[in-house]
Amino acid sequence: MGSPAVSEPRRSGHAGPGDGIATERPSPAEHARTVAASTNAATLASLTAAGDPWASMVAYGLLEDGAPVLCVSDMALHGRNLATEARASIAIVTPLAAGADPADSPRLTVAGRVERPSGTEDAAAKAAFRAAVPSASVFEDFDDFTRWVLRVESVRWVGGFAKMAWVEPADYAAAVADPVSPASAPAVAHLNADHADALLAMARRLGGREDASAAECMAADRYGLDLRAETPDGLRPVRVEFADPIDAAGGLRAATVELARRARE
Amino acid sequence: MGSPAVSEPRRSGHAGPGDGIATERPSPAEHARTVAASTNAATLASLTAAGDPWASMVAYGLLEDGAPVLCVSDMALHGRNLATEARASIAIVTPLAAGADPADSPRLTVAGRVERPSGTEDAAAKAAFRAAVPSASVFEDFDDFTRWVLRVESVRWVGGFAKMAWVEPADYAAAVADPVSPASAPAVAHLNADHADALLAMARRLGGREDASAAECMAADRYGLDLRAETPDGLRPVRVEFADPIDAAGGLRAATVELARRARE
Repeated sequence: MGSPAVSEPRRSGHAGPGDGIATERPSPAEHARTVAASTNAATLASLTAAGDPWASMVAYGLLEDGAPVLCVSDMALHGRNLATEARASIAIVTPLAAGADPADSPRLTVAGRVERPSGTEDAAAKAAFRAAVPSASVFEDFDDFTRWVLRVESVRWVGGFAKMAWVEPADYAAAVADPVSPASAPAVAHLNADHADALLAMARRLGGREDASAAECMAADRYGLDLRAETPDGLRPVRVEFADPIDAAGGLRAATVELARRARE
Repeated sequence: MGSPAVSEPRRSGHAGPGDGIATERPSPAEHARTVAASTNAATLASLTAAGDPWASMVAYGLLEDGAPVLCVSDMALHGRNLATEARASIAIVTPLAAGADPADSPRLTVAGRVERPSGTEDAAAKAAFRAAVPSASVFEDFDDFTRWVLRVESVRWVGGFAKMAWVEPADYAAAVADPVSPASAPAVAHLNADHADALLAMARRLGGREDASAAECMAADRYGLDLRAETPDGLRPVRVEFADPIDAAGGLRAATVELARRARE
């Protein structure tokens, strides 16, 4: 693949919300890579011959460094645009449930210039596109389709209302997508339905809220859980961290069990 | 609202598939308006100060003539872009079921120039945006948010693989969205599950396939049903038309009952 694998995920070391205890959370670069990995359809902004901005849906895959790979018809307007003007950007929006407010969708713009990959990178680009877009086998070798790699020059991540950051391209390239948060909704629902006592123990013993009377899990990521505790001060966000970051989606159960055990020691 | 209502939907009068009988179908302009009405989130392509194309998610509403209405922060990059360069386009993709091939999504690009609406048009734009984006009430009157109307100069509709057309802006403005097809999946499933005999009668008596031995419904729109008939020549598409076009989603049941009655006369 295009770039070396990254064995150690980047961490931001942001302070936790409201409790004064430093916690680990996904960095904006990891959030950005998580959005990029969440789907296979994006919107390309390219430039027409007249210099007008043209928005059009494209399917995409990702190289290991997060560079988007496109495979578009040279006869389509966006294909003609890319062939004559390399400047382009791609907006990727994490799919949300029907009826959800689009302003809550984590999303991403990756901007730069497209290039035709060659040699081993072209093989990697073809494999990346095919992995993301199974129907690519029908058209990927047509003479009038061109594979493009978007060389990433700027990255804007928006996590939802008033949660956003510019991400350094090098940080974007080095980060890995969170394997936990995209598939965590059922586990979060299970924790709230069946393990309210364990969540309360976590908030009290590990989250710095000894005064909590109840706690609900709001979200999970590779580094820990976001809880919301009922306290004498009202509802308060509480962050609790796993002993070790999770490397695969299947690790959430064991990490949560370990967290509950530690909260009761 | 911004433009006069259109009482008579446009029809294309395309020939039906394979049966030699002329049938009515939604025109590309109607398909385009149907895509535009299918969601409230789109991707804007705007131009940065450097002239680079910038793709970003936006929420939108629609004026009666189909012109998209945006309400964006002047501090966001896309807001700054629109304030200095009016050329813009918007890609709208009909939401598909998870796992569906994005290439099958009906979609649309509307391109033109943005303008700040004023007077009664601004009131209509505000109402249109609020109707599509309920959370707009939180921010629509903030000083640093601007409402924009995209004046439509070109329209590209893509219905799926190899189904596409440029639509004249005047046709787009005059057309109305199909009230039937977006919500027709349950009705189509019901027809196939419980009314195979009626579908076969329709294919034989109204669709010109007297030789059909079975028929399945593939899709419904305001003008009729797309069937697929088993015939001595193999599976063949068959179009059957309602007596009158349907004007509201609730009309599908009555129109289909009338079609079945007519097929058995």
